[in-house]
Amino acid sequence: MSPLAVARACITGGAGFIGSNLADRLIAAGAEVVVVDDFRTGRHEFLASLRDHPRFSLVEGDVLDPGVLEQAFTGCDWVFHLQANADVRHGTEHPRLDLEQNTLSTSGVLEVMRATGVRQILFSSTGSVYGEPEVFPTPEDAPFPQQTSFYGASKLACEGLIEAYSTGFGMTGVVCRFVSILGERYTHGHVVDFYRQLKRDPTHLGILGDGKQTKSYLYVVDCVDAMLACVDRHAGESGCFVYNLGTNETILVDESVRIITSHLGVAPEIEHSGGIRGWIGDSPLIHLDTSRIRSLGWSPRVTIAQAIGHTLDWLDDNEYAWRDQGTRYQEQRGSSR
Amino acid sequence: MSPLAVARACITGGAGFIGSNLADRLIAAGAEVVVVDDFRTGRHEFLASLRDHPRFSLVEGDVLDPGVLEQAFTGCDWVFHLQANADVRHGTEHPRLDLEQNTLSTSGVLEVMRATGVRQILFSSTGSVYGEPEVFPTPEDAPFPQQTSFYGASKLACEGLIEAYSTGFGMTGVVCRFVSILGERYTHGHVVDFYRQLKRDPTHLGILGDGKQTKSYLYVVDCVDAMLACVDRHAGESGCFVYNLGTNETILVDESVRIITSHLGVAPEIEHSGGIRGWIGDSPLIHLDTSRIRSLGWSPRVTIAQAIGHTLDWLDDNEYAWRDQGTRYQEQRGSSR
Repeated sequence: MSPLAVARACITGGAGFIGSNLADRLIAAGAEVVVVDDFRTGRHEFLASLRDHPRFSLVEGDVLDPGVLEQAFTGCDWVFHLQANADVRHGTEHPRLDLEQNTLSTSGVLEVMRATGVRQILFSSTGSVYGEPEVFPTPEDAPFPQQTSFYGASKLACEGLIEAYSTGFGMTGVVCRFVSILGERYTHGHVVDFYRQLKRDPTHLGILGDGKQTKSYLYVVDCVDAMLACVDRHAGESGCFVYNLGTNETILVDESVRIITSHLGVAPEIEHSGGIRGWIGDSPLIHLDTSRIRSLGWSPRVTIAQAIGHTLDWLDDNEYAWRDQGTRYQEQRGSSR
Repeated sequence: MSPLAVARACITGGAGFIGSNLADRLIAAGAEVVVVDDFRTGRHEFLASLRDHPRFSLVEGDVLDPGVLEQAFTGCDWVFHLQANADVRHGTEHPRLDLEQNTLSTSGVLEVMRATGVRQILFSSTGSVYGEPEVFPTPEDAPFPQQTSFYGASKLACEGLIEAYSTGFGMTGVVCRFVSILGERYTHGHVVDFYRQLKRDPTHLGILGDGKQTKSYLYVVDCVDAMLACVDRHAGESGCFVYNLGTNETILVDESVRIITSHLGVAPEIEHSGGIRGWIGDSPLIHLDTSRIRSLGWSPRVTIAQAIGHTLDWLDDNEYAWRDQGTRYQEQRGSSR
């Protein structure tokens, strides 16, 4: 990326997994970075190396508070809106949460961008907006999908808002539909869940679904590269541009499990809860067509297996990031609903 | 429709154009009908013939108030959620309005349905969710669209919510994507706008855009028939079902104008504002594929020209419905923005 298309970026959710990796990269590339985070799921540890950097600043607060956003956005040329409720599985337990944390927060971000004169936004959407697609690998212009999760529905609503703002006000929108992201600072999803279970009890592993769900993962460093390739390509261009971010690879849940058990040197008894989906809204098959992002010259540098390896190495070295939380499997088994 | 798949229906926005026509039909077919309306755009006149009917009741209030909805929904087997901000053109002047009036109101409707045990919803969506499509006539599974209006974005968000609720809670969702509807009680859109201008000044007519915009219209009686065909087909079925409601016909804006000037016996000087779109978010070409709704045995009974004729006859007889409002053309010309 040279010259850098970003002078001063605000990253919402910048203390989170992907946001803090992006912050590191932008600082290293010479940009100014303002992180907004309320530290509900973000972590101060993830910003430790940036805290005293002269081009870094932190606004601690809720993105639903316009005053917080005004303070953070003023003087920026890009907003990377990564803050979100990222939990797909629990959608039906609180259907308003995704609406509030994702859709309403994005609406607020866009309004404060208008008010503060910031014209460019990159948004972290999700492959979940394809619901259960009929076309694989799934391209950006796949048939008009139906939503199967509150998470996907809320992100789709955000995409629509960003497109309407881009059309209505001549802004620049970049919508990145992510597969699941792995790597350093990953704290939420299959891999950490299995890892956590096995650290507590190496003899038993519970898997939601039949284990044959086919997933796609992208390494966070590759993900940040891809976001910046989009920014480079579309900076200053009016309109909204949509990209799948993923790899051409897929992996079975059971295969991920084999990599994890091998890494840990354990041989647990494996119990599948059964069914082709791990939960309502879980997509049995995720495989995005990434031709469009590859046409920008980007390609991922590591395989899914390597990305899982990097993740496990990081979890080994950073017990604080996974030790204090319950496992999703336990939550489901312990729930009376 | 026999036997009627609806025992007791709540119609949000039931004092509006389409809602009140639907209410008439359901009462005539033997159903109980509860109308919710705050009369911001709905009209008491449209319910005059139902007011004293033993199977009709009215809950006057805001759909954003859960208490109002609870009162209205209790005991219903269907909700027809027609209440909306229906103004596409002014979206950029108040980007939160569509979000609040459409997306948040739909979220509230779905939550109160859960709370009151109503399991079936028909939702009035719009062909605007296709943005500016590349496929004509545009089918329900057209390529994943980009939104070009706040109105379309807000309705797309509603569709996603209804799909997520249908998937997550096994409810029945019917999403009808309407073209513009014409007929008795029509008070908003091209036809009434041109009519109103010509009633005030028969010598001059201002048209937003180049007049070559290609539109599709559906007669309100045909629209109500189509909604009830969907209800008949899907009552009791879990999932979400999407239908375009329109005709196989299209009409140029200039052609509509000729029908209106001929009806009124006037020969105005016509001034086009120019451009292929009348305003930001106006789609230059609307033509929906209606094969899916036709596969249920429905077809429209009147042509677009006849629908315009019925509309003009009704406007002739109901001056109260159009006399007191400004014209959209005048609003735009008088605006300094």
